[in-house]
Amino acid sequence: MTQQNKAVVRAVLDAALAKGRKALTAPEAKLIADAYAVPVPAEALAECADEAVALADRIGFPVALKIVSPQIVHKTDAGGVRTGLATAAAVRAAFTSIVSNARAYDPAAEIKGVQVQQMVPAGTEVLVGTVTDPTFGKVVAFGIGGVLVEVVKDITFRLAPASRDDALSMLDSIRAAEILRGVRGGAAVDRTALAELIVGVSRLAADFPEIAEIDLNPVFASADGVMAADVRILLDPQPVKPRRTYSRAEILTSMRRLMEPRSVAVIGASNEAGKIGNSVMRNLVDGGFPGEIHPVNPRADDILGRKAYKSVMDVPGEPDVAVFAIPAKFVAAALEETGRKGIPNAVLIPSGFAETGEQALQEEIVAIAERYGVRILGPNIYGYYSTWQDLCATFCTPYDVKGGVALTSQSGGIGMAILGFARTTKTGVSAIVGLGNKSDLDEDDLLTWFGEDPHTECIAMHLEDLKDGRAFVDAARATVPKKPVVVLKAGRTGAGARAAGSHTGALAGDDAVYDDILRQAGVIRAPGLNDMLEYARSLPVLPAPKGDNVVVITGAGGSGVLLSDAIVDNGLSLMEIPADLDAAFKAFIPPFGAAGNPIDITGGEPPSTYEATIRLGLEDPRIHALVLGYWHTIVTPPMVFAELTARVVAEFRERGIEKPVVASLAGDVEVEEACQYLFERGVVAYPYTTEKPVEVLGAKYRWARAAGVLG
Amino acid sequence: MTQQNKAVVRAVLDAALAKGRKALTAPEAKLIADAYAVPVPAEALAECADEAVALADRIGFPVALKIVSPQIVHKTDAGGVRTGLATAAAVRAAFTSIVSNARAYDPAAEIKGVQVQQMVPAGTEVLVGTVTDPTFGKVVAFGIGGVLVEVVKDITFRLAPASRDDALSMLDSIRAAEILRGVRGGAAVDRTALAELIVGVSRLAADFPEIAEIDLNPVFASADGVMAADVRILLDPQPVKPRRTYSRAEILTSMRRLMEPRSVAVIGASNEAGKIGNSVMRNLVDGGFPGEIHPVNPRADDILGRKAYKSVMDVPGEPDVAVFAIPAKFVAAALEETGRKGIPNAVLIPSGFAETGEQALQEEIVAIAERYGVRILGPNIYGYYSTWQDLCATFCTPYDVKGGVALTSQSGGIGMAILGFARTTKTGVSAIVGLGNKSDLDEDDLLTWFGEDPHTECIAMHLEDLKDGRAFVDAARATVPKKPVVVLKAGRTGAGARAAGSHTGALAGDDAVYDDILRQAGVIRAPGLNDMLEYARSLPVLPAPKGDNVVVITGAGGSGVLLSDAIVDNGLSLMEIPADLDAAFKAFIPPFGAAGNPIDITGGEPPSTYEATIRLGLEDPRIHALVLGYWHTIVTPPMVFAELTARVVAEFRERGIEKPVVASLAGDVEVEEACQYLFERGVVAYPYTTEKPVEVLGAKYRWARAAGVLG
Repeated sequence: MTQQNKAVVRAVLDAALAKGRKALTAPEAKLIADAYAVPVPAEALAECADEAVALADRIGFPVALKIVSPQIVHKTDAGGVRTGLATAAAVRAAFTSIVSNARAYDPAAEIKGVQVQQMVPAGTEVLVGTVTDPTFGKVVAFGIGGVLVEVVKDITFRLAPASRDDALSMLDSIRAAEILRGVRGGAAVDRTALAELIVGVSRLAADFPEIAEIDLNPVFASADGVMAADVRILLDPQPVKPRRTYSRAEILTSMRRLMEPRSVAVIGASNEAGKIGNSVMRNLVDGGFPGEIHPVNPRADDILGRKAYKSVMDVPGEPDVAVFAIPAKFVAAALEETGRKGIPNAVLIPSGFAETGEQALQEEIVAIAERYGVRILGPNIYGYYSTWQDLCATFCTPYDVKGGVALTSQSGGIGMAILGFARTTKTGVSAIVGLGNKSDLDEDDLLTWFGEDPHTECIAMHLEDLKDGRAFVDAARATVPKKPVVVLKAGRTGAGARAAGSHTGALAGDDAVYDDILRQAGVIRAPGLNDMLEYARSLPVLPAPKGDNVVVITGAGGSGVLLSDAIVDNGLSLMEIPADLDAAFKAFIPPFGAAGNPIDITGGEPPSTYEATIRLGLEDPRIHALVLGYWHTIVTPPMVFAELTARVVAEFRERGIEKPVVASLAGDVEVEEACQYLFERGVVAYPYTTEKPVEVLGAKYRWARAAGVLG
Repeated sequence: MTQQNKAVVRAVLDAALAKGRKALTAPEAKLIADAYAVPVPAEALAECADEAVALADRIGFPVALKIVSPQIVHKTDAGGVRTGLATAAAVRAAFTSIVSNARAYDPAAEIKGVQVQQMVPAGTEVLVGTVTDPTFGKVVAFGIGGVLVEVVKDITFRLAPASRDDALSMLDSIRAAEILRGVRGGAAVDRTALAELIVGVSRLAADFPEIAEIDLNPVFASADGVMAADVRILLDPQPVKPRRTYSRAEILTSMRRLMEPRSVAVIGASNEAGKIGNSVMRNLVDGGFPGEIHPVNPRADDILGRKAYKSVMDVPGEPDVAVFAIPAKFVAAALEETGRKGIPNAVLIPSGFAETGEQALQEEIVAIAERYGVRILGPNIYGYYSTWQDLCATFCTPYDVKGGVALTSQSGGIGMAILGFARTTKTGVSAIVGLGNKSDLDEDDLLTWFGEDPHTECIAMHLEDLKDGRAFVDAARATVPKKPVVVLKAGRTGAGARAAGSHTGALAGDDAVYDDILRQAGVIRAPGLNDMLEYARSLPVLPAPKGDNVVVITGAGGSGVLLSDAIVDNGLSLMEIPADLDAAFKAFIPPFGAAGNPIDITGGEPPSTYEATIRLGLEDPRIHALVLGYWHTIVTPPMVFAELTARVVAEFRERGIEKPVVASLAGDVEVEEACQYLFERGVVAYPYTTEKPVEVLGAKYRWARAAGVLG
């Protein structure tokens, strides 16, 4: 936009804000639309019926008439709209009726006049709008418009300002995408014009922070172009407080010292069993941390046999981390000392800050930390694990199964669920981190680190909010091409209570913005806690798929049907088997078995049939992923199936052929041992479910698509 | 409808069918619409432009013109429609253009003329239609109509003919229900007229089996009434083959002898380990069946120490069941003997019938069975278990945990998954039944029996199809008021391939009809295998809720948020806590804990806080169900929580206060033992998931609503 255009908008906004108004009138909105090249109908304000007729003559019949009053927002409700007025007499009658309706609707309303408007050419009714999201800031929306907009709920969101590519991708992201491309002989809409409109509206919102919402509904889109029949602009003078940010290099430097420390101080270390400071010390020692562990306690000479210091200032060397295990009221003083000592990381286990209403106390410690350049993890957390360092800086129990998944949780309870699940499933973990109140360090800092950490192959995060949605999106975009990021967003259903000021605003509630923006950041969203845990356990186990062709090989026809359902549910593609491959599979299975896909080898087959068909599935380069359905029989017992499958997969892996293989085992309880055996050998296997293995495969595919590693 | 009206329809249909046509022309459809009081625009056929102008004059301007040709089904595609023609000149020009467009579109099409039609008054565009569903027969559809119909997919189905109450319930069953009731100042539609239209259309389809589909889209519904702008009727001369049916009394008589037999014959019993006839004998004996077990084998004198008979004819007494463990080719002869012996039930384990393409062989044995009045279970099954009779008539392993759930599966593999899941979770079972090819006995027979069986408190069925959807609906409706019926419908996603002849037809694919009709029958549909198994395990454990108020009591705030999400996802209501109750809860929890709902008692609390708040939740009559979130701490270890919860629930149960209580346990692996302990004591508890306990509670509520036991 030119400076001149921006000045027009600025003047309109300033005038409205000066009067304390939260909504622009239609004529004001038109001035802004014109400045940002938003196509709207020709129109003018009439103050009497004669003037309305004259204006209609100039604009050209038919016209629409609409009441103009700052107090009347829902014009239709007020009887303030008439359309399709084709004659002077009709315009005159409509003017009188609209004004008297408006007076009856709200006797106190100031009536500025009646807008005379060009009738909009027919087309597909779409919606273009923006909202100010509490997490992501300015967000642009596009979807199907019209009166059914909140029923259809076919809408997609992007961060504003949106690029032209963003805008074009929005046209393909709604369910009704084919309508825009033209169906049943209808013409396709002008995609370029529509994309330009989206870009322009998104820039308008981004350029002016005080524009809270823009709502263009309906916009009529046709082969001839686009025109917004109604433009609503809502204002909010509240400035957004900027957040302190760190550079990527700064984050990596302090995060490396946090996650790979050589020396840890424990402030509040204790010899007394049951105290948090005792548990933390024990876990550090019992966990086998090979670096220095320095207890700090003014009333003890040694803790668990290690020399204790009166103050963290007295600790020798340069500790990388100070773990706080002292009551909230003592934190500020100890944090001052930590800062003076030059320790870059404070892990604040204590509660009693913002989560109990002590917001001021939290702000005080954040200010201290910022003054000294100390990064805070917490407060109100269980601590953290860095397993490859044998570091258990937590009051929970130690965990030592090293592996590829880094898990974080905002809530301590969820942290305990992570620990129990990991232990019972023997999940290999690189880190478990409590985030608690997130007064400073948060998900984007951790993502930045885990993205670089060579031990971490997958990151799974439980979160209830994001302190800075855009920083998270940036960190996710940088990380996803390297490794999957799984997010469990709690509090999905709470946003519904948002008061809706516009169609766009109403549609932006209920978690829709989070969902769209996280997806575009390439994040795999877990629908629930157990899904997050299972994705975390499974994704590092599976190799990345190199193409879309999924083949089901099953001993149980019934499992094959359910696995096919799951494949469709998870957006995967059942491969259409070419004739030569079909014949090759058929050669291994009984005549009444079914080739095609699922390949039903039938229930009574020996291990050799499973092996031959799995081999073929791995061998043929046109097949990209295998879903196995096992049926427990005397002929092929569970562990026999598990052993042969693991052996064949390993053999191909040695030959450099790696494809994701997942399995559903239907059988008596021996299948549980078989699943664990398979899991430990790179085959994601579950008993008593046809859904979970395919859901996990679907998550891997979602990541592969987002990361751009697929075909 | 009067006989005269029906005769009009009959004549139109017969004439079209005689010419081999599959679609009616618009004038034919209008005749039928008029006969069944379906409001359609005034119209007439014009064969030349002059006639069109004259007709438009009579009907009144503006009018619409539409091409009439049996070969042109999609008129718009052919350029065969013009609307809003307001003058004689416009009508004349449109006539010429439509005819030449149609000629260009399909030079071979026979052009009957052009329909001149009254323009339909404005209103909400809805769709009314019918399809012939392969499972449920004639089904009526209602939903949002218009060009976006297949994008919006806001449609609901009922069995045809629909009652007036059915039709009115349809208006409330779509997402856009509020649109029909009038929003933003719009007037509500005429519900009576709309319901009458739905009833009339459903009767039309039911009265004439050869009407395959009816599609009224759009129907304009307004405060002034309804009018169908377009009526499409598709024909299918195929008669539906009626199925043999049995009376309820007949079903109960033979099912009682099947499920509570005193004497069982095993045809093909064997001493040879590894043979199915050996496994079946072993399981009957090892399972402890106290009735008579008679092996039948022409080449043995005794089997497992019991006297063997050459033929089932030689077996003493009146066996209730003959279990077949012989190859398919010998079944017919043995079934003849079974019939002659007067044995009412043949359990056909062998495969090699319809499932391997041997349809004729299957029809042969069905004919034999019908001749003798023998009911067949199978063929192609693993057999069945009737645990309260200690009866394991199967080649799988015995199962002896008696309890309240009856499980059936169409597939053997799923049967094995049922067995393994039940064993590992110690699920109490009344029966497990394989249904296989369902050549005779099917889900509705079993439902009828299990509905009466006092041991059975819940029925869970895996099925891939229903042989007779209406019989199943009848059986389900009779059973659901007594006990929950859970269905896992496999092959959900396959129906999408159905060729769509109309909007209604397209919308009836993708499992939508199954979903709607099963819901109206009161069935709880499980989204996947694991869900079905968990519902089966849990529903008999939980008492029925007596009202909608669900309260969450949690030690982990993070779990509380996720449990609240799950409550919304499962259609449950988080109770709004009245002030006095809020104060009562607050008295038990720390000042920084949160009352309200979830009630966050905070993580560090002792057992007494859990106990006091759970007691209050059970005591207060305004609360109807409890969802507990447990957080593993040293202060309240998992088994302490489990013991206190089970004790308090039992104490209230003894006082006659029973409410469903479910729990999510977040913690280290000890929570697994705690969950099993709770489950065995009537509290549905899961580790590492906040979703499953609430999903199960949601299933119980769905049943309670369907059964009419809720408030």
